[in-house]
Amino acid sequence: MRQRNLSLVLHAVAAQGPLSRADVAARIGLTRAAVSTLVDELTGAGLLVELGRSRPGTVGRPGSALALSDRGPAGLGAEIGVDHLAVCAVDLRGEVRARVEVEARNRNSDPGPVLEQLAELVRRIGREAREEGLRPAGLAVAVPGLVARGSTSVVRAPNLGWEGVDVGAALPRAVPVAVDNEANLGALAELWLSDRPGDFVHVSAEIGIGGAVVVDGALLRGARGFAGELGHVPVRPEGHPCPCGGRGCLEQYAGEEAVLRAAGMTTGEGIAELRARAAGGDATVRRALRGAGSALGIALSGVVNLLDPQAVVLGGELAELAPWLLLAMERELSRRVPHPYGEIVVSRLGRDGPLLGAAHSVVQRVLDDPMGHARG
Amino acid sequence: MRQRNLSLVLHAVAAQGPLSRADVAARIGLTRAAVSTLVDELTGAGLLVELGRSRPGTVGRPGSALALSDRGPAGLGAEIGVDHLAVCAVDLRGEVRARVEVEARNRNSDPGPVLEQLAELVRRIGREAREEGLRPAGLAVAVPGLVARGSTSVVRAPNLGWEGVDVGAALPRAVPVAVDNEANLGALAELWLSDRPGDFVHVSAEIGIGGAVVVDGALLRGARGFAGELGHVPVRPEGHPCPCGGRGCLEQYAGEEAVLRAAGMTTGEGIAELRARAAGGDATVRRALRGAGSALGIALSGVVNLLDPQAVVLGGELAELAPWLLLAMERELSRRVPHPYGEIVVSRLGRDGPLLGAAHSVVQRVLDDPMGHARG
Repeated sequence: MRQRNLSLVLHAVAAQGPLSRADVAARIGLTRAAVSTLVDELTGAGLLVELGRSRPGTVGRPGSALALSDRGPAGLGAEIGVDHLAVCAVDLRGEVRARVEVEARNRNSDPGPVLEQLAELVRRIGREAREEGLRPAGLAVAVPGLVARGSTSVVRAPNLGWEGVDVGAALPRAVPVAVDNEANLGALAELWLSDRPGDFVHVSAEIGIGGAVVVDGALLRGARGFAGELGHVPVRPEGHPCPCGGRGCLEQYAGEEAVLRAAGMTTGEGIAELRARAAGGDATVRRALRGAGSALGIALSGVVNLLDPQAVVLGGELAELAPWLLLAMERELSRRVPHPYGEIVVSRLGRDGPLLGAAHSVVQRVLDDPMGHARG
Repeated sequence: MRQRNLSLVLHAVAAQGPLSRADVAARIGLTRAAVSTLVDELTGAGLLVELGRSRPGTVGRPGSALALSDRGPAGLGAEIGVDHLAVCAVDLRGEVRARVEVEARNRNSDPGPVLEQLAELVRRIGREAREEGLRPAGLAVAVPGLVARGSTSVVRAPNLGWEGVDVGAALPRAVPVAVDNEANLGALAELWLSDRPGDFVHVSAEIGIGGAVVVDGALLRGARGFAGELGHVPVRPEGHPCPCGGRGCLEQYAGEEAVLRAAGMTTGEGIAELRARAAGGDATVRRALRGAGSALGIALSGVVNLLDPQAVVLGGELAELAPWLLLAMERELSRRVPHPYGEIVVSRLGRDGPLLGAAHSVVQRVLDDPMGHARG
């Protein structure tokens, strides 16, 4: 009960801080005396600070405004992309305090060297975080593939060409390591960092197409942890073969490669170039994006008919291409969903979603179990 | 807290009874003294009985075996089918104590006379239940259409030809009336009456195709109450037009009419005849059912990729046709789902699911809030 109350105090300050003790007491329904005791414990543990005391220059009644510490535990997030690696550190306030991103050629790669390079980046960001007075409390890694529930092993990451790779085992073990699907973490970032109600379907893309379902504020992981594989929803059941073994999967019509091919471009040219040409009015590129939008609309019609979410959120690189996808998507949805349905919205996090979601997943664990991560 | 504990006692006895007071105490984690007080209140309210006392012939220690009352509150369930009306009464023990079913021609019908006939059947079953010593505690009605969340109005029931019909308002108001989609109630029946883990996708059919998603023991209703519309998931995006406005919806390939048409039969011949011909080896009928199985498999591949459920349950009339559907369904699923997936199982409730689910939804409300339904 005490652990739960400590967590309630931290979550209240995280959501609406800075707050006075009285404000916290009112929000979580405990007495002011009880809150004061909890606050003392949390400040002693270096998780909360009193702005009036610790920052003499701040406006406000001394000692009354509580905020999360910017020198307490930090979450490390990492992302293994098909063409990049990234690592960041986020403090309890949600601010990115250190970050590195490098280009990489991870397609059909040998996992060993990739993970070695990632480990080096993690160590570097860990050092930078500690130099800022932060204490890394955990590392979460976003991967473009299936991760079995509760494990750190990538079952299959087709675009990396990895199967059965224990990512967790290859990374620094100074802090607990978690591994999760990038689309899951992108959706969690959307849940934690936007004001959205906790009931949406999140669609994202890098090379593949990822999906995630959030219901009542919780990510739906599925019985084996494999939920959200929107990229393999059939949209043309007898259409293009897919490396997954199926035919006509959404990824074959709206994935990066498919769109580049339809636009008469090469894989190397990438999304930034695609976006530039679409913005410049290139008719072939725009037609290719309309085709991708239709395919997304067909797949999402099925999803919306099945789940009736409050919203469909376009994240990842799809967010950057939204202006040329949305009309075709909406056309399919309005034809194929026989009742009112949720709005389609574009994520503001864009391709940063999975990396931020990874780091924030560690921060959320600290807020949920404060004393498990307290100083010393 | 007291209400919650009364409910815990009832649920423990419902799940595993008959139980002694000590057994109940052990199962719900309260002291035996506390349980005895709760049990006294529940027996006084006519919800629990002590088998030893009330049934002198029963084996066991006198006064020790607690069971749910078979003369307490009852749930009334009703179903408006396209070609039938049904009403039943279920006691707290889950036994059907009265039941009536009549053939009807409800397709494209005037709601008034249909609901008048249903009201008469409800009154009759209510009388029969009271003659058995039961007290109807509520009525729930299963309809083949969309019901807005928290309302008793059918937004759209295409196969009845109804739009915006307040079913609740037309029925006897002696007890609270709830209205829900038949596929939702079929899935809830499966959840409450089978030993299945509470994580599955339920697919059922009468004339239309209905779906329902159960996650962690709870039905996923969707933001507007419209979740589960599996019948309008596109399986041939440029295929047959559907009355919903879309093209190539699952219902156009696996709904009753589509299958009868593909089998060279007329709508009037119905599922029983279809089943008989399939069992007799009719090649055209079997081919039609394989086609329906493929369409179901394509739609369910999308569902399984998205949700990764523990199981897919075939209910309603699909359960009776399963022997001729399953192979084609499995073929599509194994091609199109790139990882292990849940088993496909056949419901034992068959077409009784929605009716039983309706009656049991009332019983569940009594178990959840015992004193709201106590005697007097």
